[in-house]
Amino acid sequence: MPAFDIDERLERDGLLIATLGLCQLRINNDRRWPWMVLVPQRDGVTEIFDLTPLDQAMLTFETNMVASALKKATGATKINVGALGNIVRQLHVHVIARSEGDANWPGPVWGFGTAEPWGDDERKAFAARILENL
Amino acid sequence: MPAFDIDERLERDGLLIATLGLCQLRINNDRRWPWMVLVPQRDGVTEIFDLTPLDQAMLTFETNMVASALKKATGATKINVGALGNIVRQLHVHVIARSEGDANWPGPVWGFGTAEPWGDDERKAFAARILENL
Repeated sequence: MPAFDIDERLERDGLLIATLGLCQLRINNDRRWPWMVLVPQRDGVTEIFDLTPLDQAMLTFETNMVASALKKATGATKINVGALGNIVRQLHVHVIARSEGDANWPGPVWGFGTAEPWGDDERKAFAARILENL
Repeated sequence: MPAFDIDERLERDGLLIATLGLCQLRINNDRRWPWMVLVPQRDGVTEIFDLTPLDQAMLTFETNMVASALKKATGATKINVGALGNIVRQLHVHVIARSEGDANWPGPVWGFGTAEPWGDDERKAFAARILENL
């Protein structure tokens, strides 16, 4: 596998819980929503269409596996999936569990208010629930 | 192919410009951003992971084809891809061209301000540019 350097901000904002075939699986450190981030371990890639076809298929597979696990683990009303990258250009995919009445429902999570960091124990419990459901 | 009924709001907000293998390709009727919407022609599907594996692969292929065309047609700084569905539950994927200084940059487009409908001529010219680049 080629060398892989994760963007500083992605590293700071998220907590690595697993390495999948293509992606790092991270919990975004904001307890307002159950929010995972997938970071393909490829350097210099900004857009999904810049990945090789095989990597695109892998990213789809891993994104949908994580989305399904998040749905099962949380019972959320809706899973939001997004690849924006307007601020951090290194390709990353957000997978977020949304429920009626959550912060900014039914609007998007990005750019809304201020992150509330997870406590250590609740973050570990959340990570364990996700990993059980993968 | 099974019967397919498009959600009323998706139909009202968008303008069909092509039918791909899986999806309707629509222009969101908001000229503030070059904004495409892909609607898989499958009834009763809300989450990407509810699609069959083949349809998931098709959706990835068509999404990335449209994203690449939108990048080529607009020269945008970044393509935003998202499947949210908090308001309209029928599965649909947004593909939006973003550029520094556009409305709400670098924040998300969803829920921001009020849509500005395209004029007929500029919409047709935009649709033609997208189709040329597919």
